[in-house]
Amino acid sequence: MDNKNFSISKSRRVRSTPFTSRIEKQGISSYSVYNHMLIPVTFGSLEKEYFHLKEHVQVWDVSVQRQIEISGNDSFKLVQSMTCRDLSESKIGRCYYSPLVDDKGNLINDPVILKLDENKWRISIADSDVILFAKGLAIGNEFDVKIKEAKIDTIAIQGPKSFKLMEKIFGKKITELKFFQFDYFDFKETKHMIGRLGWSKQGGYEIYVEKTDSGLDLYDYFFEAGKEFNVKPGAPNLIERIESGLLSYGNDMDNKDNPYECGFDKYINLDSNTNFLGKESLKKIRSQGIKRKLMGVKIDMNQIDLTKEEKLHDKENNEVGFLRSAVFSPNFKKVVGIAMINKKYCKESQEFKISINGKSATGKICSLPLV
Amino acid sequence: MDNKNFSISKSRRVRSTPFTSRIEKQGISSYSVYNHMLIPVTFGSLEKEYFHLKEHVQVWDVSVQRQIEISGNDSFKLVQSMTCRDLSESKIGRCYYSPLVDDKGNLINDPVILKLDENKWRISIADSDVILFAKGLAIGNEFDVKIKEAKIDTIAIQGPKSFKLMEKIFGKKITELKFFQFDYFDFKETKHMIGRLGWSKQGGYEIYVEKTDSGLDLYDYFFEAGKEFNVKPGAPNLIERIESGLLSYGNDMDNKDNPYECGFDKYINLDSNTNFLGKESLKKIRSQGIKRKLMGVKIDMNQIDLTKEEKLHDKENNEVGFLRSAVFSPNFKKVVGIAMINKKYCKESQEFKISINGKSATGKICSLPLV
Repeated sequence: MDNKNFSISKSRRVRSTPFTSRIEKQGISSYSVYNHMLIPVTFGSLEKEYFHLKEHVQVWDVSVQRQIEISGNDSFKLVQSMTCRDLSESKIGRCYYSPLVDDKGNLINDPVILKLDENKWRISIADSDVILFAKGLAIGNEFDVKIKEAKIDTIAIQGPKSFKLMEKIFGKKITELKFFQFDYFDFKETKHMIGRLGWSKQGGYEIYVEKTDSGLDLYDYFFEAGKEFNVKPGAPNLIERIESGLLSYGNDMDNKDNPYECGFDKYINLDSNTNFLGKESLKKIRSQGIKRKLMGVKIDMNQIDLTKEEKLHDKENNEVGFLRSAVFSPNFKKVVGIAMINKKYCKESQEFKISINGKSATGKICSLPLV
Repeated sequence: MDNKNFSISKSRRVRSTPFTSRIEKQGISSYSVYNHMLIPVTFGSLEKEYFHLKEHVQVWDVSVQRQIEISGNDSFKLVQSMTCRDLSESKIGRCYYSPLVDDKGNLINDPVILKLDENKWRISIADSDVILFAKGLAIGNEFDVKIKEAKIDTIAIQGPKSFKLMEKIFGKKITELKFFQFDYFDFKETKHMIGRLGWSKQGGYEIYVEKTDSGLDLYDYFFEAGKEFNVKPGAPNLIERIESGLLSYGNDMDNKDNPYECGFDKYINLDSNTNFLGKESLKKIRSQGIKRKLMGVKIDMNQIDLTKEEKLHDKENNEVGFLRSAVFSPNFKKVVGIAMINKKYCKESQEFKISINGKSATGKICSLPLV
């Protein structure tokens, strides 16, 4: 992903995680920064890690997925006000992928919201300071809530063999956990909250580590118990997540985009009685129709370095849209990507041209996930 | 500053600046991430850059210092509500270093606020999403304001020869600009807003580039015009800023600290009629007195890698405080740092012990800036 090798300068401001020293011993080679914290990117080869993730099982340090905890009498009111997804029928023990929008109907974040209790929620966030938005809203509305960043560092277990590995450690009960549900499981007499979800389409779990000492033990134990499943350390994989159509806030979408443009239609509940920010704006957008949409792309190149959005053109040099994420896929033997495409070009196999870093190529638009 | 050489993974989410390609040609070797954007850290030697900064003049890409623009009828009300500094007598054309606090009186950010007009302000922020806090407050309070991240990328000119260099380019008038004031100056017929301030104590200016093309021209021209002043590309320098006592949000202080603990007493105006968040909390803190305070430290080591806060102890192993920033100073021939020190130890020459990365050393507490 890097065109050149610039080092990352560490400091307290760019927080390490409880697992940082472990992944450094395991050979992490590249980091990014996410929610003011180090996120591992690769241990050396995105492609090798991609193939391994699709066949075996990986342990990821995704502590960067900070959890904002909102509790108190008005906690539902505050949480619901921030998302266009109707949470009025939500259940304890469930996880809800929920776009957060501002008063203009534009995206603030795309977290998973976990309902722990009627008056206790955790928002497992992408890369923006949702805590500041929540505090501002709570203060302005004089809501009776407590808001804090929970001291939780998440380990993700991802890959088709994650189920076997988790069963070996936590017993049969964990295999009964349904997709986007969470529950509590013991590891050596310490209870951990575990959800069945994760930022890949290969299946797996997230362990929300509150008790750090036990979490570190557990991290190590995954590698001991996982030998028979060919377990390896890993990280959210750019190739896999683009192919799977898992969107990344800050890359594929930001505060200039609305959730319809990002294909979040099923999480936008305008016809319920629920009140949330931007509802009127989103109604207007729905009635007028969107002008552009996130789509997949395949490009006839064998390498790409994308550090900002890049314009796509048609044969007549009209603007087709903007490429926002891209990487070479060893599966498709092309560059694959996610792009914001102008409405009239949002069709399968629509051709386009791109010029980047002095190279030109052609590509085709496709749906998400890529097939 | 890095203990090992991990590379930084670039993407759209970690934004480049208009000057990134230039500083890469000029030999930048290390980045951090700040406000979701690349911040240059060093071109190879912090120490060489430190000595150069104190004698000559440097050009810094500090685009990461994003500016949140707040305009509209209630803009003063919103801006004032976020800071404990009384801005009721503030003047157009002036810059105000202003701690932002939440309803608990804890720090959200420590920006410079620029007053452009009675109803137009820019908040030049440290590393947290102040825009989300402002939006939340504005929505909750139904304030009549517009809030946006301005499309401004800042170049800083820092060092004792910055005055000569700026005069050569912008004429005599710029030397009349007083500290923490800004005005508008022409470069080749394009107007740029320029303030006399910056994140070093060596003197200098910040150019708030709105017109990118002219800004790029200007960036290049600084190196042409600056040859006679031995101009070099640079970056905020960890050694210089610690010695000068310039605090860094996220490193030296965060949302668990209050402004009294950070020595911001003169920016906390509790006795005016001005209303702002956390006023009652800060009154309580003032009457009770603080339990700890940021102080300088000097440690008998010749190298340090600080990636999280490290506990300091006295001879009897009592907790003295926490070291939050540190670097070797070629001036003091010791490690210098900034630490949050428990009240009873807040005295000049107080001794302490530290153990870090398997090494132990002793140090002494001192005031800020370091002398």
